[in-house]
Amino acid sequence: MTDAQQAPPATSAPSATRAALRALTAALGPSKVATGDAMLPWSRDDSPYPSPLPDAVVHAASEDDVQTTIRIANEYNIPVVPRAGGTGRTGAALPLHGGIILATDSLSGIEEISKEDLTAVVRPGVVLGDLHAACTEMGLFYPPDPSSLGTCMLGGNVATNAGGPRAFLYGSTRSWLLGVDVITGGGERLVLGGKTRKRSSGYELSQLFAGSEGTLGVATRITLKLLPKPPETLTVAIWCRSDPGAAAVAATILAARFSPACLEFLDERTVDVVRGELVVPEGGRALLIAEFDGEGVEVIAERLGNLLSGLPDVCVVHAAVDPSRREALWGVRRALSLATRRVTRHKISEDVVVPRGSAGALLDDVARIGELHRVRHLTYGHAGDGNLHVNFLWNDEDEKPRVDAALDALFRATLARGGSLSGEHGIGIAKVPWFAAEHSATSRALQAAHKAAWDPKGILNPGKWAGGDRNHREC
Amino acid sequence: MTDAQQAPPATSAPSATRAALRALTAALGPSKVATGDAMLPWSRDDSPYPSPLPDAVVHAASEDDVQTTIRIANEYNIPVVPRAGGTGRTGAALPLHGGIILATDSLSGIEEISKEDLTAVVRPGVVLGDLHAACTEMGLFYPPDPSSLGTCMLGGNVATNAGGPRAFLYGSTRSWLLGVDVITGGGERLVLGGKTRKRSSGYELSQLFAGSEGTLGVATRITLKLLPKPPETLTVAIWCRSDPGAAAVAATILAARFSPACLEFLDERTVDVVRGELVVPEGGRALLIAEFDGEGVEVIAERLGNLLSGLPDVCVVHAAVDPSRREALWGVRRALSLATRRVTRHKISEDVVVPRGSAGALLDDVARIGELHRVRHLTYGHAGDGNLHVNFLWNDEDEKPRVDAALDALFRATLARGGSLSGEHGIGIAKVPWFAAEHSATSRALQAAHKAAWDPKGILNPGKWAGGDRNHREC
Repeated sequence: MTDAQQAPPATSAPSATRAALRALTAALGPSKVATGDAMLPWSRDDSPYPSPLPDAVVHAASEDDVQTTIRIANEYNIPVVPRAGGTGRTGAALPLHGGIILATDSLSGIEEISKEDLTAVVRPGVVLGDLHAACTEMGLFYPPDPSSLGTCMLGGNVATNAGGPRAFLYGSTRSWLLGVDVITGGGERLVLGGKTRKRSSGYELSQLFAGSEGTLGVATRITLKLLPKPPETLTVAIWCRSDPGAAAVAATILAARFSPACLEFLDERTVDVVRGELVVPEGGRALLIAEFDGEGVEVIAERLGNLLSGLPDVCVVHAAVDPSRREALWGVRRALSLATRRVTRHKISEDVVVPRGSAGALLDDVARIGELHRVRHLTYGHAGDGNLHVNFLWNDEDEKPRVDAALDALFRATLARGGSLSGEHGIGIAKVPWFAAEHSATSRALQAAHKAAWDPKGILNPGKWAGGDRNHREC
Repeated sequence: MTDAQQAPPATSAPSATRAALRALTAALGPSKVATGDAMLPWSRDDSPYPSPLPDAVVHAASEDDVQTTIRIANEYNIPVVPRAGGTGRTGAALPLHGGIILATDSLSGIEEISKEDLTAVVRPGVVLGDLHAACTEMGLFYPPDPSSLGTCMLGGNVATNAGGPRAFLYGSTRSWLLGVDVITGGGERLVLGGKTRKRSSGYELSQLFAGSEGTLGVATRITLKLLPKPPETLTVAIWCRSDPGAAAVAATILAARFSPACLEFLDERTVDVVRGELVVPEGGRALLIAEFDGEGVEVIAERLGNLLSGLPDVCVVHAAVDPSRREALWGVRRALSLATRRVTRHKISEDVVVPRGSAGALLDDVARIGELHRVRHLTYGHAGDGNLHVNFLWNDEDEKPRVDAALDALFRATLARGGSLSGEHGIGIAKVPWFAAEHSATSRALQAAHKAAWDPKGILNPGKWAGGDRNHREC
């Protein structure tokens, strides 16, 4: 088989596209089919990759709308690119070969949150933060917490298997997905799983669907597992004297049998960027933020305090249980995005992941790569998971080839350490050139066969990583 | 397509089988290919279902042995049934159409437990209890804990997506599976995932493989996620005055935002069976056992004690943190299996699962079904998950048709409540007659297509639930 890196296919023939748009407008009504400038807000995502515009944006308001759209697209053989919140970082929602953006942000609403079942049933257009708020109000807890939680939507969370800091203890979105209603690429309605908290009955296709980035089908209803809301949360900001010192402290915390919900890291260069915006304690050069859920967390605070006070790498420790004081401890992390924009015109943020114990070694790799290619970098992320957000920064376009070389070196170093191209953002179009370096030909062929079973004509999200040559449709 | 209930296919032609056995013996050496009485210990599992004997048992000691066996089976078109610990309850490891039992219990050994990576790499023949012990010794924790943990093996745990009490908080085996090396049904070597704790890179085929019951491939190496061992565990036995009372107490505990690692239930009839073996407090008729992991668990004990002391359904509460006292509180659950055998000659134990809040209603269903069909029953299991082990008991063969009718009614009642046929045991051959009632024709066709991609000739575990008519091979 050919792999995912071959030349992109032709886009749809204009006559087929025009006919398809007429059919869509007739079937859905003109208010749901946008063309021209009205498409623009739905034609981009939160990635920096170039892409042509779609031929139309369909605003689906029901499962029937989704099914009708996919059936018409199959009939006229034109691409469909599903999109929910549009906060993806990898270009997975970009219409690389034109066709239809199938927008599910109007297919919204929390259908049910059940305290008895400890489940939530939502539509793909629900904003994650709204689900969090609704759960909290009922004393319930949905752990996944990607940093875009104020705008990202559950449809996209499932499509990318979104993570976030709490994934360390609780796992990513897939671990919380109990069921999903899908319209497959072939236009069939598929109800997978349901509200039971566990299941060993046939192939658990919902778990394959999670992380499939809109290449298998479109979620129209999502059932999620919840937990009771932990009564208390303890946040501990641990200022360390150096990057290697912070890595050592993180390892010491885990070896001492603490189980934080999250264990975040900001390297020295990241701290330098926010140094002007916040109070950084004297001698504090790198930062760990650990968070613990439970009750009686003061016992954890005391034991952790005792442990940390004996470590020479630790400079200052701040701990808080009160929500507003906890939020203040997260301030450095929250200030990061804006502060970074002030020091650079361009940045690319990757989310490579390595086996946890290799995170320190990957930091060394990044330093070496930055030096070799003369590219500024800063790294922060999920130290507990070995999932690091490596950022390369540049100001002038003539630096870009060096950034590209550094990116290539980063991905190769990650894979050499037994890592993966993405911990939580997905592949999209961003990482297609390295996909075959992570996934063997046997695996890619099997993935392509699975794609073909869900999407026989290859209309969903063509030209991206999935499906090998099958996905590289020629229209 | 035809569904999974059609008539079984023919078994392999004797001449092809003889030729295959000669080829296997030549390739692997005679010591690894057992026939005749030497096959017997590997020809059964822990299910009550009739099955023919296999034609041979291959004792694989390496990945190469597995690949050689599957390749020869493909060449001669004879069935291969993978088997690890043989503790399955559903007949998934029975050679329904003869052929080869591919025994992986000799493919054993813990290859690595890494404190730095928080991962374990094991072979499929490792006994789960041995992994638990090795992890504990290093201050680490692998949560899944099916009751067969003293004899079941990781290969089977992955194949059935095994659960256990702690699945309530921590999820089933699938949630802890980071990677798996597989020889596919087509005989290809496939390395899926790895030691990274999270990943969003392509279709996560390892998650599809989990729970596939030996129908897609054979695991030869398994990489698992670990946590730091919780410093303390609190076990609380809550004696309740009735079944509905216990269901209400369980709901109250969760509504009060306690997050137990497990929340187990034994109904009045189950308690009656063990009443003679253990001290049951006056007025105690049904039992809940809750367990909490963490530190500072005395705070949990105090708040829980306060909550329970105000509940009229609660009779007596015993709590313990000390390991030997905790073990004593689990005594009732441990005594169950032997005690049940004393009161009945035959029993069948199902593991249906319903949405958590419907567990009480399912208990009512079971009482109604037992009365209607005049079948003795007792129910215990994972109240937190809605995953109940419903046991039907009988002494004489002429009661069996009534038991069969009760079973049918149980599965239909479960599905009517949005439940699933199995929470943790799998489908095997036990639940094939109801498979189509849970999984739509669209879902079954898609599952069959996935099966065909991994196992093009349908040699793996033929005649069971997977793969619809494709799996019902005619040799």
